Amino acid sequence: MQKYDNCWLNKDTFFNKNYESYILHGDCDITNSIHKEVGYFLSLRQVYEENLADLVFKKLEQQDSSLGIEGFKIDIGKTTYISSNTPVGLLYGFFKFINLLQNDNLSSIVEIPKNSIRMLNHWDNINGTVERGYAGSSIFFENNQIVKDKSVIYHYARLLASVGINAVSINNVNVHKIETYLIREPLLSCVSDIAYIFRKYGIKLYLSVNFASPVEIGELDTADPMNEDVINFWEKETNRIYKKIPDFGGFVVKADSEHRPGPFTYGRNHADGANMLAKALQPHGGVVFWRCFVYNCEQDWRDRKTDRAKAAYDHFMPLDGSFDKNVILQIKNGPMDFQVREAVSPLFGSLRKTNTVLEFQIAHEYTGHALHVFYLPSMYKDILKFKTYAEVSKDGCIMDILKHYPCENNELNGITAVAGIGNDFNLTGHKLSQANLYGFGRLAWNPKTCKSEIAKQWINSTFNINENAKNIIKDILITSPQTYENYTAPLGVGWMVNIYTHYGPSVNGYEFDRWGTYHFSDRNGMGVDRTLKTGTGYTRQYLDKNFEIFENIDTCPDELLLFFHYVPYTHILKSGKTVIQHIYDTHFEGVEKVEEYIKKWNEIKEELDIVSFKNVKNRLQEQYRSAKEWRDQINTYYYRMSGIEDEKGRTIYK
Amino acid sequence: MQKYDNCWLNKDTFFNKNYESYILHGDCDITNSIHKEVGYFLSLRQVYEENLADLVFKKLEQQDSSLGIEGFKIDIGKTTYISSNTPVGLLYGFFKFINLLQNDNLSSIVEIPKNSIRMLNHWDNINGTVERGYAGSSIFFENNQIVKDKSVIYHYARLLASVGINAVSINNVNVHKIETYLIREPLLSCVSDIAYIFRKYGIKLYLSVNFASPVEIGELDTADPMNEDVINFWEKETNRIYKKIPDFGGFVVKADSEHRPGPFTYGRNHADGANMLAKALQPHGGVVFWRCFVYNCEQDWRDRKTDRAKAAYDHFMPLDGSFDKNVILQIKNGPMDFQVREAVSPLFGSLRKTNTVLEFQIAHEYTGHALHVFYLPSMYKDILKFKTYAEVSKDGCIMDILKHYPCENNELNGITAVAGIGNDFNLTGHKLSQANLYGFGRLAWNPKTCKSEIAKQWINSTFNINENAKNIIKDILITSPQTYENYTAPLGVGWMVNIYTHYGPSVNGYEFDRWGTYHFSDRNGMGVDRTLKTGTGYTRQYLDKNFEIFENIDTCPDELLLFFHYVPYTHILKSGKTVIQHIYDTHFEGVEKVEEYIKKWNEIKEELDIVSFKNVKNRLQEQYRSAKEWRDQINTYYYRMSGIEDEKGRTIYK
Repeated sequence: MQKYDNCWLNKDTFFNKNYESYILHGDCDITNSIHKEVGYFLSLRQVYEENLADLVFKKLEQQDSSLGIEGFKIDIGKTTYISSNTPVGLLYGFFKFINLLQNDNLSSIVEIPKNSIRMLNHWDNINGTVERGYAGSSIFFENNQIVKDKSVIYHYARLLASVGINAVSINNVNVHKIETYLIREPLLSCVSDIAYIFRKYGIKLYLSVNFASPVEIGELDTADPMNEDVINFWEKETNRIYKKIPDFGGFVVKADSEHRPGPFTYGRNHADGANMLAKALQPHGGVVFWRCFVYNCEQDWRDRKTDRAKAAYDHFMPLDGSFDKNVILQIKNGPMDFQVREAVSPLFGSLRKTNTVLEFQIAHEYTGHALHVFYLPSMYKDILKFKTYAEVSKDGCIMDILKHYPCENNELNGITAVAGIGNDFNLTGHKLSQANLYGFGRLAWNPKTCKSEIAKQWINSTFNINENAKNIIKDILITSPQTYENYTAPLGVGWMVNIYTHYGPSVNGYEFDRWGTYHFSDRNGMGVDRTLKTGTGYTRQYLDKNFEIFENIDTCPDELLLFFHYVPYTHILKSGKTVIQHIYDTHFEGVEKVEEYIKKWNEIKEELDIVSFKNVKNRLQEQYRSAKEWRDQINTYYYRMSGIEDEKGRTIYK
Repeated sequence: MQKYDNCWLNKDTFFNKNYESYILHGDCDITNSIHKEVGYFLSLRQVYEENLADLVFKKLEQQDSSLGIEGFKIDIGKTTYISSNTPVGLLYGFFKFINLLQNDNLSSIVEIPKNSIRMLNHWDNINGTVERGYAGSSIFFENNQIVKDKSVIYHYARLLASVGINAVSINNVNVHKIETYLIREPLLSCVSDIAYIFRKYGIKLYLSVNFASPVEIGELDTADPMNEDVINFWEKETNRIYKKIPDFGGFVVKADSEHRPGPFTYGRNHADGANMLAKALQPHGGVVFWRCFVYNCEQDWRDRKTDRAKAAYDHFMPLDGSFDKNVILQIKNGPMDFQVREAVSPLFGSLRKTNTVLEFQIAHEYTGHALHVFYLPSMYKDILKFKTYAEVSKDGCIMDILKHYPCENNELNGITAVAGIGNDFNLTGHKLSQANLYGFGRLAWNPKTCKSEIAKQWINSTFNINENAKNIIKDILITSPQTYENYTAPLGVGWMVNIYTHYGPSVNGYEFDRWGTYHFSDRNGMGVDRTLKTGTGYTRQYLDKNFEIFENIDTCPDELLLFFHYVPYTHILKSGKTVIQHIYDTHFEGVEKVEEYIKKWNEIKEELDIVSFKNVKNRLQEQYRSAKEWRDQINTYYYRMSGIEDEKGRTIYK
């Protein structure tokens, strides 16, 4: 248990209250886990040599339908009762109880998760690498098999359960040659071993599968979803998986995207493809997560008509209603690809007859590679609060509609995220990135949770430090996304990163390439015209009210201005500044903020353990170097383009 | 002999003249090679079933001092005499004789090479890769040892001897970990095996060595050239090498450059470093090639004072006269790095007390990766004819000064080139690139040879085709450098390539990086101000007359304008065009020329063997695709920057 820094579960001050003993009836994988967890936390108690009061776990004999299958109640008294309809509810209740203790906030509560799917997608390859991972190697695989030391998987499972995650897909959505065989022995046994661990913590295991498996491992000459042999292939494979892993969750599929095979090859559509897999899984209660990240990645930069942002909607809206009941469309938060700032996908609120999950990214692909501080719950909250104006609530916020379509209280809805976890001692590379994993769990459980409350909880649960230090860390976390956005690509235009690595500035890194990712800067102005009137017409994919907001330059929010409009550098923002002055100001401010972080972090050195202190200090230094590079490259580029001087006369390299 | 297409030596029409028998006295490695060669060519004769007249090789008993050690005479008569002071002279004479036959140009001649060093530098790694090689894997190494099938090395050696190459270094100047051990057994035996083959064709073998060898393999804690142990180390290593390879040529050294170790580490200068190695080699007659490619590769793009172009001169001019007699400074043709167009290094004509060789690149690093046609002898001729105005001849052309300093008729001067050869069936990847290897040899032997004559000879020696086809190929070759220059970076500014690969356009690929390679384009103009008056002062490194020519915008040649000056897009060139219109025009013209090549090449399909036809045809297609990408990216970039329309209204993507 000591090898990995288990974040918010390893603080040794949990039991500074009095609990004498505990009672837990029943015996199953999960109740055994609860015994272990309680034992672990009780062992920490000895540090304080205090007496503990009674703790009783009550699995309700008479089901309380208001709690559902995952909810729980905590009743605080001389004896504290944690009750639930199910063992996993008790587990969640216990972890919540610990959390309340850590936050010195003990009170009786009832909790039921708002989303039934709270999932993480690992992009792990079986050779041990993690695509877009910046926190070490895979915690599941090494040398083309399962890791020898599985303790980290245990730690990880309890960590996830402690924030309510109930589903994990363990391999990369880009399913390479060897990974295609994960559905077959001998690799299937490895998968089963991992499922065994997750099962103890109430987490279902999923696999990313290769749509071309019938060809690649089945010796068929087609993967056509309408072909009888292909249908039989998947039925047989699925049956074999369930024989080995009876509670197997199902498949995650990236098809017809970035050179992955898919139904298009055979003149079929995505519903044909997804439904075929769904039918194989259906008898076992499994589901298909079908990713909507489908676009032409061989676009010509000269082609101004094609707009990558429109692709997912164009592909999937016509299919609304044609997916089987156990198919879930997995939609990235934005129409592009996890940019620091981009619009919210117009599929949300538009798709109404189809199960959907929202896909976030915890991995720091475009958010600084876990070398820059970036507190993701801020971004998640912005997205969850985005008003689609669909008629499900006052504004049709994303968080309201997730559960609403295709039917009220639909159980196959929720949130998933690309995990980015690795075997670094702290699992996330940057110590402060642990707050993102923590926060994702909290928001998946309850999207209404406030980002500031999440930060506070994570800090309370993680560090033994004074109030001043807590406030400093919280301030760094909360301000970090704006800081990062300030010194990187301006006003929602995105993509000014080095190609492939996606780290560090390159204004034109993607400007003349085939990925549909342009800023169209010239000597007069910059931005992508996505209006219906003069541009690509992407704005029209939104419901009427948002269409009008984004179409109109006067109502389009500043932070997305260049995502929707091409404007001159002298255009006046709602802030009262010109675009060019905004670029200069934000880029200077961003770097100044990082300087401030470094200063503040050094101030709290004495409060922190040396490992956490150094981990963040070193990364802040790199963030500072990188932020200056961003500032200067962007400022110089736009000075050279526009010829407009900084009003404040600061140093811009000519 | 059939596996590899041996270019100009495998045409089967050599002996359509009458030669009955031949006489060659003596028995040594080289005379044995002559026997083999004659036998090979005689075997081709049988195709024609003609009688051959007598061919007599005369190794002169009384030395003819006018021929030196490599010159030869060919006397044509009923009996043809090839005579020389040395076996290698006879070998060169025989290959020249074959060449005259191939070109239907038989006449009595005397030839003496103008340069004594005619060398190729291989950048081969022992794992089989070739740095900046685009023609397959190494012909020397595979799997960390010498290749099993050495026949290609034989073919290569005779090919080189046929154009007078007399020196080859076989490993990458970036000497990696394993290659550092090439000077030790067991790898030294592999080197010796290769030397054995080259020896038969009059070619000396050299090794690139790691300056830090005393630390890396000698278990010393320093590589300080003044340290007694280090001196002893190199003496011992060198003695061991010569015991194994008595005619070993010496060392090639890249030191203190691009993270290679060097004397700077120990507060010593390059003369200290080079002389230390030279002293170890001196007793054996070996020499040190010390590369002048030394610059700061960690420059800050914000720093406008540092100019990479100045680095070699700044490092080496102060050391002129302090190098040992068996040290040769190896100077790249330009001050940057083998760009399509750059100024000629100001070290030529300035260094006067030091042996120097000129370094060209045959490998197509910046000239299209052997996917684009690029006839290098044109570029080589431009450089060889460059007037330094040093007082050695009328204009002090490079070709005149090579042999002049440090003393008249100095024997340690010449030309070397980065080979770029690989185990592709034609050794050069692009069939037409064979003309570059051929031409380099011819120019190293005699820099006065005309580029058009070289092209003619290579075509005559290589193809059995009609005059029209010969003219078409010649025209493609001769126009190819201008074509390539037209669609790539304009007016000598260079560097607009994708970073690291150096293939394909990226206007800003190197603009904000640490390599000292910038174009400083802004909305008003572009170019690097290297004048003394307002810029970096690089112009002052030239002798007075060139300083004035380059310093003055009115006398600076168009093709180097942006190398020396920053000018507005509206600046009028000597051609009468504005810079921006020149950019548009040349980029359209470049692509049109490639279209013409494709058309012409298809026209001569019937004349060509299918392998050559397809090889070039496929590459022309890629050249066309790439040229269009260059055209459009450059034109669009500068349209967006300048806002100036094309006078001719052609398509420029906005």
